[in-house]
Amino acid sequence: MNGIDEALGLVRRSVRGMAGYVPGLQPAPGQRLVKLNTNENPYPPSPRVLEALQKASDASVRLYPSPDAAPLRAQAAAIYGLAPSQVLCGNGSDEILAIVMRAFVDEGDAIAFFRPSYSLYPVLAAIARGRTREVPLPRVERAEEMSGIPVPAPKARVFFLTSPNSPYGVGFPTAWIGHLLGRFGGIVVADEAYADFAKESSLPLLAANPRLIVVRTLSKAYSLAGMRAGLAFAHESLVREMMKVKDSYNLGRLAQVAACEALADQGYFRKTRDMVVATRERFAARLSSLGCAVLPSAANFVFAVPPGGLAAAALSEKLLARGFLVRHFAAGNVSDGLRISIGTDPEMDALGGAVEEALHGGE
Amino acid sequence: MNGIDEALGLVRRSVRGMAGYVPGLQPAPGQRLVKLNTNENPYPPSPRVLEALQKASDASVRLYPSPDAAPLRAQAAAIYGLAPSQVLCGNGSDEILAIVMRAFVDEGDAIAFFRPSYSLYPVLAAIARGRTREVPLPRVERAEEMSGIPVPAPKARVFFLTSPNSPYGVGFPTAWIGHLLGRFGGIVVADEAYADFAKESSLPLLAANPRLIVVRTLSKAYSLAGMRAGLAFAHESLVREMMKVKDSYNLGRLAQVAACEALADQGYFRKTRDMVVATRERFAARLSSLGCAVLPSAANFVFAVPPGGLAAAALSEKLLARGFLVRHFAAGNVSDGLRISIGTDPEMDALGGAVEEALHGGE
Repeated sequence: MNGIDEALGLVRRSVRGMAGYVPGLQPAPGQRLVKLNTNENPYPPSPRVLEALQKASDASVRLYPSPDAAPLRAQAAAIYGLAPSQVLCGNGSDEILAIVMRAFVDEGDAIAFFRPSYSLYPVLAAIARGRTREVPLPRVERAEEMSGIPVPAPKARVFFLTSPNSPYGVGFPTAWIGHLLGRFGGIVVADEAYADFAKESSLPLLAANPRLIVVRTLSKAYSLAGMRAGLAFAHESLVREMMKVKDSYNLGRLAQVAACEALADQGYFRKTRDMVVATRERFAARLSSLGCAVLPSAANFVFAVPPGGLAAAALSEKLLARGFLVRHFAAGNVSDGLRISIGTDPEMDALGGAVEEALHGGE
Repeated sequence: MNGIDEALGLVRRSVRGMAGYVPGLQPAPGQRLVKLNTNENPYPPSPRVLEALQKASDASVRLYPSPDAAPLRAQAAAIYGLAPSQVLCGNGSDEILAIVMRAFVDEGDAIAFFRPSYSLYPVLAAIARGRTREVPLPRVERAEEMSGIPVPAPKARVFFLTSPNSPYGVGFPTAWIGHLLGRFGGIVVADEAYADFAKESSLPLLAANPRLIVVRTLSKAYSLAGMRAGLAFAHESLVREMMKVKDSYNLGRLAQVAACEALADQGYFRKTRDMVVATRERFAARLSSLGCAVLPSAANFVFAVPPGGLAAAALSEKLLARGFLVRHFAAGNVSDGLRISIGTDPEMDALGGAVEEALHGGE
């Protein structure tokens, strides 16, 4: 077929020159692996969610969903103590981040973020033909040290603050985020996908800070990664502007139903969240006892650097051979460690054993 | 609260200055209206779809979906005689259109489309800070006249061709689209949301035309507006570029399941599609007999201009008072007519009676 080069020549240069975001591996249906690489929740969603999905799987799927996900806005507002007009619903929090770009970042504008943090941000910048300001994030040994991280003030339109950070897992104290809002003059996006597992968040700052956008997801603590539901909380006038640049019907009917019901069952949420946090602490202690350097995590994963002698990439391979899929980021300054999602207690006990073998056994 | 103006000042000027797309009214749950304003299918999806959704509403929703919707790509490829690499899956076809913009349209580039056609295009252009070239679309009385529509060659990066057109319902013949690809040097997006109800489409042109992108949706003929599933067919190298600018997990698990199963049940699809087409022909004939000018439709709606004496807006109000919600576009050059979705036979018979009363009765 002729004309392929001609067609490719019509692609934006900024897109042709970029690689796109690479999501963590999704094992094929037949593969039997303990999947600890993309921070999914090991527990199913609330039984109420599954019941509601079954019930909503009826002829009404022929009809368009509520364009602004009105019932979900109301439910989220009730849970978080906000007005529905302060809530924006997205097709996962990834869509919310893309919406923020479309609302605030013009060609040539800069966005800022810590390095390391969510590796999607530079991809979003490339799509918008924006520039990036990367601020190095020092590693801390104790959670208390996070208060001492220097507060940056880069020249940028938006600061994307992953908190708790990924892949490190460390969380920024509320007061620190307040200082960032004081020093940095642009929009602060508190990208809090993991905040449900943390003790602090930026939420208390929302009422007094119209430049703050809080982003949450139902993918992690609410066990709904497969349903794609994200939330943003912001001043209603900012929500109104962001609504203009989202797809009209961005959340399907069943995604809205699942998210509403998951938020409604706060008892189940708290119970499973506490289980994950307890397992995280046990597993982190075990890794430490094996000689790994484990960063203090406020998320549903830990970042661990194996003791001298074994490279993280090699450890990752050995764990895969034993049936455990964890995340190794080859790029950036985090290639010395592994990001390991928290599974069930039996899964993490077995993984602890596998790590011990890999470190001290041979093959 | 202070600082709101400061925060709003950070919104892109192009976004602040635009209104956003206004979707058709979604009646509140309690409202009892025959909803004929957004071209939904009056029939439920295939029973196989609902069964599959029930079955898939299980603990697996805690896991991320396939990032490229691999099973759906394979299913769509099999149905349409393509390779999976030629298929891109979107969160509704609206997301596909937005992806096309992000892949091909830089700031200052122009997009072209007929006026009237899908009113989302100028909104997408505003978001991209692109320009628009609107080509007037003449009204035709007979479908055969569509071959005689002058083939435009505007200076633009992308031509969005809604075919069948909305709100007119007229379809462009395959040969005409071939001529457009010959004359126009950019990307031709055949936006075929309604092509399942038509006799022709651009699909046969795909193999020989790497500048063609065919966009389909499961929202209309497959009764899945609530699930948000759209498809694009294009040369695999263009699909690869478009994949870079989509959200990583843009289609949830249940949306993928529903779309796969709907495509798999071609027998049900053909049966309900034929019912809608038959009802459309009967209803169009009835409107004509009442003195309305009805454009020849290849879609699941008709565009009708009431006979002299009654304005379309007034007719729309009278129909609403009788429980029928139809679409009147106040803007543009289509305010003299109504776009009416095709419902079931009893619904359209009742609507025909209501139109007759409105035209000849008083209130």
